Amino acid sequence: MENADKLELHPHHCGISVADIEASIDWYCRMLGFTLEKRVKVEGVPAKIAFIKNGDFMIELFEIPDAAPLPEDRKHPNRDILTHGTKHMAYQVNDTKQLVEDLKSRGVEVALDVQIIDNTIMAFIRDNTGNLIELIQPLD
Amino acid sequence: MENADKLELHPHHCGISVADIEASIDWYCRMLGFTLEKRVKVEGVPAKIAFIKNGDFMIELFEIPDAAPLPEDRKHPNRDILTHGTKHMAYQVNDTKQLVEDLKSRGVEVALDVQIIDNTIMAFIRDNTGNLIELIQPLD
Repeated sequence: MENADKLELHPHHCGISVADIEASIDWYCRMLGFTLEKRVKVEGVPAKIAFIKNGDFMIELFEIPDAAPLPEDRKHPNRDILTHGTKHMAYQVNDTKQLVEDLKSRGVEVALDVQIIDNTIMAFIRDNTGNLIELIQPLD
Repeated sequence: MENADKLELHPHHCGISVADIEASIDWYCRMLGFTLEKRVKVEGVPAKIAFIKNGDFMIELFEIPDAAPLPEDRKHPNRDILTHGTKHMAYQVNDTKQLVEDLKSRGVEVALDVQIIDNTIMAFIRDNTGNLIELIQPLD
């Protein structure tokens, strides 16, 4: 039996439901250095599904016909957490400030501008569906 | 300038808003091998915040007074993706079947029982707030 005290979990992927899977593949590849890993069909799930990859980590993108739009609260870090649930993914980067400047200049929306919190340089951006993504650079 | 085609992102943490932060710290430590890394205060955010860690990856837990409960749809993998947004985290494990049996015997809710999809052995469980967590074991 695997016991919790020695259980090793490795982050494998994060699932995101998006409005337009082709636009999202394009956005993540152009803006955040992902590459398309594979497209998948799952029996009983009427979705277009694709895995995109950066390093060892993947995002699983779902596009479902007539899915409901992202609730407005979910576009804002401090409002998103007012409803229980899995919220944002945070990625460690080498230089938050430079990356956010670069992304801004290329039209990416910034939801919370670069600041120092808890000994990290962090910011929140939004993907092309409005989903929050935290970029974080530890200072020690 | 960091270009997207050479940008390396490392998964740092996933944020989750929960009903009872002490109960969630206890659940993730007992069930999934996390340890409490630190408690954090963020100016302007009226939340109890804690980081818990397994290997190099962390979960940032938020407890906000009077937060809205998890929408019922979010407890079911195939209904969760009917609304755009960041959905589930998936963790790679060594033995999905054994782990899910162990967790079940300890009272953990299984949202989608162990099955083979896309050359992986996967399942969905729920944390103590109802949040979906995918456990995934690649077969190649």
